[in-house]
Amino acid sequence: MTYRGQHLLSVKDISLESIDELFRVAELMRPYATRQKMTRVLQGAVLGNMFFEPSTRTRVSFGSAFNLLGGEVRETTGLSNSALAKGESLYDTAQVLSGYSDVIVMRHPAAHSVSEFAEGSRVPVINGGDGPNEHPTQALLDLFTIKNELARLGQNIQQLSLTLLGDLKYGRTVHSLCHLLSLYHGLKIQLISPDALKLPTAYVDMLSNAGHQIEIGSDLEKGLSQANIIYQTRIQEERFSSEEEAARYKGYFRLNKKIYSEHCLPDAVIMHPLPRDSRNNANELDNDLNEEPGLAIFRQTDNGVLVRMALFACILGVKDQLSKYESEVNWQVGLK
Amino acid sequence: MTYRGQHLLSVKDISLESIDELFRVAELMRPYATRQKMTRVLQGAVLGNMFFEPSTRTRVSFGSAFNLLGGEVRETTGLSNSALAKGESLYDTAQVLSGYSDVIVMRHPAAHSVSEFAEGSRVPVINGGDGPNEHPTQALLDLFTIKNELARLGQNIQQLSLTLLGDLKYGRTVHSLCHLLSLYHGLKIQLISPDALKLPTAYVDMLSNAGHQIEIGSDLEKGLSQANIIYQTRIQEERFSSEEEAARYKGYFRLNKKIYSEHCLPDAVIMHPLPRDSRNNANELDNDLNEEPGLAIFRQTDNGVLVRMALFACILGVKDQLSKYESEVNWQVGLK
Amino acid sequence: MTYRGQHLLSVKDISLESIDELFRVAELMRPYATRQKMTRVLQGAVLGNMFFEPSTRTRVSFGSAFNLLGGEVRETTGLSNSALAKGESLYDTAQVLSGYSDVIVMRHPAAHSVSEFAEGSRVPVINGGDGPNEHPTQALLDLFTIKNELARLGQNIQQLSLTLLGDLKYGRTVHSLCHLLSLYHGLKIQLISPDALKLPTAYVDMLSNAGHQIEIGSDLEKGLSQANIIYQTRIQEERFSSEEEAARYKGYFRLNKKIYSEHCLPDAVIMHPLPRDSRNNANELDNDLNEEPGLAIFRQTDNGVLVRMALFACILGVKDQLSKYESEVNWQVGLK
Repeated sequence: MTYRGQHLLSVKDISLESIDELFRVAELMRPYATRQKMTRVLQGAVLGNMFFEPSTRTRVSFGSAFNLLGGEVRETTGLSNSALAKGESLYDTAQVLSGYSDVIVMRHPAAHSVSEFAEGSRVPVINGGDGPNEHPTQALLDLFTIKNELARLGQNIQQLSLTLLGDLKYGRTVHSLCHLLSLYHGLKIQLISPDALKLPTAYVDMLSNAGHQIEIGSDLEKGLSQANIIYQTRIQEERFSSEEEAARYKGYFRLNKKIYSEHCLPDAVIMHPLPRDSRNNANELDNDLNEEPGLAIFRQTDNGVLVRMALFACILGVKDQLSKYESEVNWQVGLK
Repeated sequence: MTYRGQHLLSVKDISLESIDELFRVAELMRPYATRQKMTRVLQGAVLGNMFFEPSTRTRVSFGSAFNLLGGEVRETTGLSNSALAKGESLYDTAQVLSGYSDVIVMRHPAAHSVSEFAEGSRVPVINGGDGPNEHPTQALLDLFTIKNELARLGQNIQQLSLTLLGDLKYGRTVHSLCHLLSLYHGLKIQLISPDALKLPTAYVDMLSNAGHQIEIGSDLEKGLSQANIIYQTRIQEERFSSEEEAARYKGYFRLNKKIYSEHCLPDAVIMHPLPRDSRNNANELDNDLNEEPGLAIFRQTDNGVLVRMALFACILGVKDQLSKYESEVNWQVGLK
Repeated sequence: MTYRGQHLLSVKDISLESIDELFRVAELMRPYATRQKMTRVLQGAVLGNMFFEPSTRTRVSFGSAFNLLGGEVRETTGLSNSALAKGESLYDTAQVLSGYSDVIVMRHPAAHSVSEFAEGSRVPVINGGDGPNEHPTQALLDLFTIKNELARLGQNIQQLSLTLLGDLKYGRTVHSLCHLLSLYHGLKIQLISPDALKLPTAYVDMLSNAGHQIEIGSDLEKGLSQANIIYQTRIQEERFSSEEEAARYKGYFRLNKKIYSEHCLPDAVIMHPLPRDSRNNANELDNDLNEEPGLAIFRQTDNGVLVRMALFACILGVKDQLSKYESEVNWQVGLK
């Protein structure tokens, strides 16, 4: 895809060239996102940030990304009381809302709802998550983070040894990431999960067909020992087939400082789609890792802003005008 | 009314001259709303978009209209947990909120609440819908659409033959429109509804007194055959006096492609206040009409932005400064 | 504190010098807030207005203050469905959200939650109210109002004779105000409440230690007769030890025009943290006082905008650049 004037509905629509281009533009966004300077390239443009399912993090990330380019944001949060609840079709909702904005981000609890919505929209639509189906910008920011973290370690994507850890059966972020990874070949990928939560065969085949070197298992230590990038996910106990099985794995897939020090490569990077559940009965990624330089989870959310800014700039065709609308940042940046 | 520095609380306050002026300004807004150019005439101004009853469509329409003029929008959605729920009077709420913005749009579930609120406000208040009472900007955008659609057909308002269809008893949009129509005279108006849902006598008298030629009936085909504009509404079955009566009318007031082709004038325009209920048991306006050029329902919502932009520009007294704050649109407009 | 690049979490962190500086800047904000001119000094900056507990008034006040300085606002309202509800720590939430904005206002129902949040934030955090604990900007706007109202009467802070009235036991606004008042000395302070709702000893001692002249009692008339500033609060009947006691005080701490005329000094100023409960069974401040020049409750909320603008300008270090980004207001201001 070329992005300009187009929807972004699925990671399946994205080619390697278009990823490279998006990530090149995302790097151009860094000085604006880190407040070294600012750009008003989208001044006057309006984003319809339509979250028919609540999500503080993703909603604010998209909204801030648009503001950082100088545009305005109109929002909705939640499904109740909306016209959709009164029997309006997604086609109608899209026709109406696309008359109010230049680009729409839509999140909705039903799978494929965003594609249905896009058919009625007169402006580009970005899938902000359609239930169990896809969340393409999460996959893009994950891949962007993988490439950036490898670069930080002086490595490139072909040197990736990625361990996907935890619930690989239900996590849509992992599945979307697999789609993007299958655009590459010859990578090392370890799939470490409880037996009950293995990556579905379709995704394993997709990765194999791309020529990646796959290892599948449930041995955490072995999985950790080879990885330069570890992608941890949440395990929800109710997803095991029995309480006995849940009890068997309880705590087994948790990462903490001790495990990290003993079993991981020295500079190993830890990623997580967030939020991480820090309650005692979950705690899949312990707070004692917070000071580890390898913990990339907040660089990951920061990268979300870069990738979303880049996506807006590409879709709205202003990626080459950023510096034309540039000015100095005149306020105190960060804490003092 | 002259708009500038004034509230817009009721369609009853509006004269023919002020409508003409508003619609003249609404036409000036078209190039900005369609992104041929942009204006920042209200840069620095703040709209308080106070929706004490949820409404995605109307709320976003007002907010986008203000953004399209360069202003900022502060919002609230829903009544729960607000100070109103803690026993604060509308007078107090208005005093407080009017210290935070330059103009306020207010929606509230209680009839006449917006007028009560306006008494405490130190800035102009626009009624965004006060329960069963009024929704004046809906009536204005409906009339604007009628005039525009007639113009598209090479006709003017004196050639209007309007069929109001469906629930004419309870629909506040129809009642508000009747108020505006009674500013004209000599129009042809057909009132087609089930017996149980007839237009209340007060409105019929109002239209008669204005010198309009009224026909009242329940014969759909006859109503459709004479109209250049058809205004369809929702019929809620629970509003009939008995299940037998509901069953008798079931499906009778639905419009679809077949009925449209067989019974309407060739270029007949179809309007609807939206949302239309596209569920099978409702379906008052079938999706098979979506490709008909006469289906004006989305032009109607687009017109809402023009009319609301015009209203803000008139109330805030900037209608003659639009081009002074104008610049080029530098982004991709619409889909490619 | 010096504000710049710092959190504002508690009134306890504020010195007399920093209050004077903040109030000096707040006065600079008056021409912008009253629309005599406008400034775009924070154009391009983003406020994260994170209300994990609903509050229309405070939320919109902060948001408008930021807009009045030219900045953009991203918001959230309510705790449900947020990542916090999914077990995310406040540290994580802060790390993530601080990547999306230049400054954060946070409200949360739990005491000390905002301080915990601030530890994870990479940008300055302003406490927008952390449950029963603190609401520092309310205390600051209250003190600013006291000084301004005294100045209006040709008096200064050393001439203050303040009567705190009503529920002095539970009201966090009164407690925070006591902290700020204890930075001064030699003021006259009357604490008038039902016995069951007396100011806690710790606060009485704090005021005494500051060298203020304290009177404690439950005699409304005596309390009113000496005050140039009366600070009324809400009394919630369920807070009395028995129904008999509640009945005894019922109506006793209400202020109305008759009581005001008979018992107060001629120019006595009435303040209230708002919302006031105007229902018959509450009515602690009667609507018949609305036309009294001494009723300062809406000047008080207006002052909230000035103080919050000043706080943003100080924290973001732009207080000396306001006029550099100044321009004329080109729209109709207020009602006509």
